[in-house]
Amino acid sequence: MKVYLDCYPCFVRQALEAARYAGATEAQQRQTLDEVLGLLRRAAEGLTPPEIGDRVHRVVRRVTGAQDPYRAQKAAATREALALYPRLVELVAASGDPLDTALRLSIAGNIIDLGPAPQYELWAVVERVRAQAFAVDARDALRAALDALPKGERVLLLGDNAGETVFDRVLVEVLWERYGLPTTYVVKGGPSLNDATLEDARDAGLHQVCTVIDNGADGPGTILARCEPRFQRVFDAAPLILAKGQANYECLSDQRRGVFFLLQAKCPVIAADLCDLGSDVPTGGIVLAQR
Amino acid sequence: MKVYLDCYPCFVRQALEAARYAGATEAQQRQTLDEVLGLLRRAAEGLTPPEIGDRVHRVVRRVTGAQDPYRAQKAAATREALALYPRLVELVAASGDPLDTALRLSIAGNIIDLGPAPQYELWAVVERVRAQAFAVDARDALRAALDALPKGERVLLLGDNAGETVFDRVLVEVLWERYGLPTTYVVKGGPSLNDATLEDARDAGLHQVCTVIDNGADGPGTILARCEPRFQRVFDAAPLILAKGQANYECLSDQRRGVFFLLQAKCPVIAADLCDLGSDVPTGGIVLAQR
Repeated sequence: MKVYLDCYPCFVRQALEAARYAGATEAQQRQTLDEVLGLLRRAAEGLTPPEIGDRVHRVVRRVTGAQDPYRAQKAAATREALALYPRLVELVAASGDPLDTALRLSIAGNIIDLGPAPQYELWAVVERVRAQAFAVDARDALRAALDALPKGERVLLLGDNAGETVFDRVLVEVLWERYGLPTTYVVKGGPSLNDATLEDARDAGLHQVCTVIDNGADGPGTILARCEPRFQRVFDAAPLILAKGQANYECLSDQRRGVFFLLQAKCPVIAADLCDLGSDVPTGGIVLAQR
Repeated sequence: MKVYLDCYPCFVRQALEAARYAGATEAQQRQTLDEVLGLLRRAAEGLTPPEIGDRVHRVVRRVTGAQDPYRAQKAAATREALALYPRLVELVAASGDPLDTALRLSIAGNIIDLGPAPQYELWAVVERVRAQAFAVDARDALRAALDALPKGERVLLLGDNAGETVFDRVLVEVLWERYGLPTTYVVKGGPSLNDATLEDARDAGLHQVCTVIDNGADGPGTILARCEPRFQRVFDAAPLILAKGQANYECLSDQRRGVFFLLQAKCPVIAADLCDLGSDVPTGGIVLAQR
């Protein structure tokens, strides 16, 4: 997805918020804003929002000297999600359709995102998403794809934010227990916003249930050109890809056919971009899309 | 009030919205954004938000060629407010404290503001503001100032947005009928956002109840340095000044002692700036402040 003009105010806001998360002084905040205004002017039209976001958060890290401005927020989000984990497992165990429940929980976890919408009530979101109609609904296509995959083939799950990882773990477990499919879970190669890194995935216990790798890049989403060749080969060879969150959608929606995107539409720009796949995608809509 | 860093994302958003109100093409929207990002980088630290907003909206008008991008919105806001006018008059007539009711209605009308918060339900806001506690409450000081003013002295009322003018008309009538004080009502010398001009004031019927003058400037609020000398003299000589809305507060809060500010705090930046005058000023708080 290319960047929309509506993304620009959001980048400026995010830059300021990220600088403050990093403990920036007033002068550092001002310098961050100034540099970000400049880079937004120079940003080429063909870039995706995560490619610009990557540069924005790079400015924040350089100006503030904070290598991982969201470290504390990420750890807190993982702790909060882990506290809910037993209840998530119970919901799946009690469900007549464990895959559906696990998909919904994974999508519910996508609310943990300090970019577009810093405020949320985690369990209230779980309850909402459990009952909510899909705004874009590729569940049948996903079921067919899972059924067609030979047992033992690996699903590639592109993760998103720390804490959301715990919700994805429930989905990973269902893919293994119900479909006999192991998962390779992908995190970022370095800190970017509140995206999960290897450390965050370990905190969530993901290494206990699947293979966890990083993509070698420290930008948001999956900016293929910046990922390591090792990851690019895994990506190209994967028979089935599940991609979590807005940034992965923004990076990959025009890149490779057949990727399944699981996310909550947390801003009107994404919602509008998805409208050709669903009759009406509202902000807050839950999405399982295949492009 | 000096500009805060939090104002920058809002300027970028407003520029894009204003360009679209003006019917800008995609290319014009892009050029507007590009120029506004550049001017925000160059903006001096000591400027007030309206001084920057003035430049932003000047870019919009120049790039789009629209002399008055908000013309239709202003006319519609005035029509909507005029439809409520008989009910506003009834509320004052039935009130045990007509000045208090008229002040509240004038503050309620301040919701009509396409800068910070384009969405509102006008009558719901009237009902809310009638019952709401003042977050900053200088009513006693204002009553004392009105009582001390010799009959026939003119109150200077600095207007804000089109449509809001109708609500101010009710206050103008109370000042005349209850205090024997005529009002000079000030509008902008040219279009800026949805601020009222002479044309908008006439549409609201203000010329029937008071003297209406313009300040000679086409920026938001009251940027004294850009106003005509004729208006500056009126401002300097005025024994009592009521200033409506955020932009007038932002322009004048550090300029002259004793000005009374009537507004709704429509953004967290203003709310925070006002906090030294009230115990806690929330976004949405109603304010009658004297600096």
